[in-house]
Amino acid sequence: MAAKSERTRELLVETALRLFRERGYQETTMRLLAAEAGVSQGSAYYYFAGKDELVHELYVRIQQEHRERAEPLLREDARLAENLRTVLQAGLDTMDPYHSFGSTMLHAALSRASAVSPFSEESAPARAAAVGLMHQVLTSSRDTRSMSVHPRLPELLWLAYMGVTLHWVTDPTPGQRRTRRLADGVAPIIARTVALSRLPVGRRLAADVFALVDRLAATT
Amino acid sequence: MAAKSERTRELLVETALRLFRERGYQETTMRLLAAEAGVSQGSAYYYFAGKDELVHELYVRIQQEHRERAEPLLREDARLAENLRTVLQAGLDTMDPYHSFGSTMLHAALSRASAVSPFSEESAPARAAAVGLMHQVLTSSRDTRSMSVHPRLPELLWLAYMGVTLHWVTDPTPGQRRTRRLADGVAPIIARTVALSRLPVGRRLAADVFALVDRLAATT
Repeated sequence: MAAKSERTRELLVETALRLFRERGYQETTMRLLAAEAGVSQGSAYYYFAGKDELVHELYVRIQQEHRERAEPLLREDARLAENLRTVLQAGLDTMDPYHSFGSTMLHAALSRASAVSPFSEESAPARAAAVGLMHQVLTSSRDTRSMSVHPRLPELLWLAYMGVTLHWVTDPTPGQRRTRRLADGVAPIIARTVALSRLPVGRRLAADVFALVDRLAATT
Repeated sequence: MAAKSERTRELLVETALRLFRERGYQETTMRLLAAEAGVSQGSAYYYFAGKDELVHELYVRIQQEHRERAEPLLREDARLAENLRTVLQAGLDTMDPYHSFGSTMLHAALSRASAVSPFSEESAPARAAAVGLMHQVLTSSRDTRSMSVHPRLPELLWLAYMGVTLHWVTDPTPGQRRTRRLADGVAPIIARTVALSRLPVGRRLAADVFALVDRLAATT
């Protein structure tokens, strides 16, 4: 039973992701989803309360796939700039099939208190995994491996990746090539900033940034 | 005639902004707008092709009001950190009445190739004015007044302000107090970064950032 239930859920998710890609968010109704998956509407609603839960599932899967794609590409002999670039580009590769769906997803994500938001309580596990990938970038790279990493630094790298994602969603250039260049260009800039934050002249600035992030996280 | 036409247009804009604040974007139809302004629907459409043009008008007015509010508050004896903080907070003060309408406005703004976007061709004059305000912050403040300002720096400050705005739109805390803290905290961090970019150790990093912005601006 558990296995069958898991298979039905999986079938619904796969079908929903295909419909989102092929028909977009508006046209993908729960009715159409049930019909395409060959299950009853009641059954579809048993697994997912609505489309937003499927969008959340998409976000979770994109995170997973991003991590699976990026991890084997991280090189122990590479520097932070190069490994970070690899991770950013792997993220863009992963999201690529969903570009036409991106602005709808963004709209859902930006609604305040939306479960779909990457900043929501519900997204905490997916977010932790994504931040974990950034932590891995820091511990893999030869120039940052032995550095004592501030607990907030992986989170800031993830935030930079969210910025790249925002640019990607609204990027009107063919194949989102401007975002590709942004990822290539921003990776060495971030790596240099990390290096600078360890020099006496940058230490105070870094401390201010981390203190601000702490202060904001504590503001409710 | 020109004066009367200008008055009708103004009446429509004022009415639309009030309806956006009071009823939100969805409920503000062109029909309701015409009725509330006491003009015919034909007349309303003569001035504005649709609601999106009114959203664009709102963006333009917010920029103007932001500038008018911020300029007299800039102090010649203050440092960049303080004047920048003043400008960021003045922006939040200006947008405050429209917070409930913010995520709709953001959705319109993020649609690729949307005229409403602050990055669009249509928004170029409003954007130039907003970037101009940042230029003024640099030339007003006593620690940056005599500095040779890179042509891209005011644009980057404006981009940081766009980041604060994005945080504001999605800020669920009462009175958007987290965004207020972000503005207070980020202003001295930006000022310190600007100072650092003039030291030998930061010069190369700053050059990389400006080169990246140039490269992205040239990518179509």
